[in-house]
Amino acid sequence: MSLRGGIDLGGTKIQTVVVDDANAVRGQKRLPTPTTGGPADVAAAMVEAMRDAAEDAGVNASGLERVGVGSPGGVDAEAGSVTGAGNLPGWQGTFALGQALQEELGAPVALGNDVQVATDAEARLGAGRGHDSILGVFWGTGVGGGLVLYGRPWLGRGGAGEIGHVVVQLDGLRCPCGRRGCMEAYAGRGALERRARELHDRGEKTELFKIARKRGRARLTSGIWALALERGDPLAVKLIDEAVAALGAGVASADNVLDVEAIILGGGLGLRLGQSYADRIAAAMLPHLFHDHRPPPVKVAQLGDLGGAIGASLLAVPAGNR
Amino acid sequence: MSLRGGIDLGGTKIQTVVVDDANAVRGQKRLPTPTTGGPADVAAAMVEAMRDAAEDAGVNASGLERVGVGSPGGVDAEAGSVTGAGNLPGWQGTFALGQALQEELGAPVALGNDVQVATDAEARLGAGRGHDSILGVFWGTGVGGGLVLYGRPWLGRGGAGEIGHVVVQLDGLRCPCGRRGCMEAYAGRGALERRARELHDRGEKTELFKIARKRGRARLTSGIWALALERGDPLAVKLIDEAVAALGAGVASADNVLDVEAIILGGGLGLRLGQSYADRIAAAMLPHLFHDHRPPPVKVAQLGDLGGAIGASLLAVPAGNR
Repeated sequence: MSLRGGIDLGGTKIQTVVVDDANAVRGQKRLPTPTTGGPADVAAAMVEAMRDAAEDAGVNASGLERVGVGSPGGVDAEAGSVTGAGNLPGWQGTFALGQALQEELGAPVALGNDVQVATDAEARLGAGRGHDSILGVFWGTGVGGGLVLYGRPWLGRGGAGEIGHVVVQLDGLRCPCGRRGCMEAYAGRGALERRARELHDRGEKTELFKIARKRGRARLTSGIWALALERGDPLAVKLIDEAVAALGAGVASADNVLDVEAIILGGGLGLRLGQSYADRIAAAMLPHLFHDHRPPPVKVAQLGDLGGAIGASLLAVPAGNR
Repeated sequence: MSLRGGIDLGGTKIQTVVVDDANAVRGQKRLPTPTTGGPADVAAAMVEAMRDAAEDAGVNASGLERVGVGSPGGVDAEAGSVTGAGNLPGWQGTFALGQALQEELGAPVALGNDVQVATDAEARLGAGRGHDSILGVFWGTGVGGGLVLYGRPWLGRGGAGEIGHVVVQLDGLRCPCGRRGCMEAYAGRGALERRARELHDRGEKTELFKIARKRGRARLTSGIWALALERGDPLAVKLIDEAVAALGAGVASADNVLDVEAIILGGGLGLRLGQSYADRIAAAMLPHLFHDHRPPPVKVAQLGDLGGAIGASLLAVPAGNR
């Protein structure tokens, strides 16, 4: 039996898994992503998390057939490098992540885009199984997207899947990316928190920040939003209603062009809010869908928090690096 | 040498071609699309136009290797039928167009979507040559779209490419399709004419309708818009500026998801306004493009008015119909 490693490199956490030939998870570990230092420090934390997952699976990391990494930023799979990962400390430039990990782990390393590998995992092992084409929508701090077409990942010229930056409002709200009117400006958790704070400062009532303080959180996590919604917090309800409307328009726009078999909803907010919100997004898509007599199903990602790491473990090692 | 036929079935005209093995046009004919009667009358006009093109090429239609048709409405290529072609007379239901043509022409018939075959023609023979992925944007009465991905047409579940109905404005203008905020509501020639008429009725100055009367036209054709723009007509300039802004946002949205190698601009207005407007659309895309350091080129379709018919001639006959 051969085992493979997978690393999901996120802005707040590093999630690793070890999977077997049947893609069953045999070991896992989660560590916080370093918030100071540089790429080498992040790589060291990734090595530690991968070794711990291997130990959890009862093997040595060097015995892994290969290790895949789902990374933010600009990924050059052939070169094994990551450029401009804005949410990671000191990672404005290019870093040879593949080589750094390979030297420490003693196993071949493959790099891929974080959202794309999570989409691929859902397509092959999760909610997208049996579909030839899916659009993955990862609703979290931002809104990421991934595509599987003809049964395989569609990367375009390397930068496909940026569904968060589909325009839903000409001259609309400023997006964290700096542009105007992007879907993410209305739906991303980062943008939602900024708007909640502004509106709260202007006197709108909300429990959001009180819940965060009580939980000792500096940020409005998905769990905090979910609790506020459960309690009917008016500001949370209003902002999430707007987010759902924006997601409906933006995802329907993408599907009008692509006409995929299924939409898979993941990400921190997507997973936390679950199928009832997937259904709300599906309903919000309907008035914008050109072929509204047969809308694509909107399904919640099945692999949950481990999807990114499992997807990374599916990456093939580039020929030049075997 | 074998010859193939191609028929572009449009709402106002039927364009046919005969092409040789090298896809060179050997014969062609254009007839007006019947405005009364039903699908059988349209089919009869298609047969006449195809026979005339064959005669123009010095052959008999029954000697053609095959005849392809690019059709509006819902095309079922396997069944050889077209359903709900709203711009054609009496074509609300399903009509066995393939069989009707085949019986009269004596050559195997293949059906495809009108915009998709025009996109495929540009990909294989026109402005998209050498690109593995293109997005065709056909800016005319409506705004149609077609995709080539991995070097072959992407149809989704049969309805892909509806770029005209990408949402650019939540709760925006009413689109001819009945939905709100679609790109076509701001950019389609049909919607533009409706808005021009409303604004003119409310007192805004324009020469658009005067030019149309002088030319004996009931509709504002692409040529009329082009002339009004040349003359600096204020209403024409304002509406086309808005159209370009909407096209920029909508096409950039699609490209943020797809990241194609090139955008091909066709359609009546696209061809008439040409590369300077393709450049304007490219400039309008830039503020919305996520990867704005390497925007895709926006190129005018090279096959012009014959693109749809040439693309139709490229269609393969379904296995069940050979």
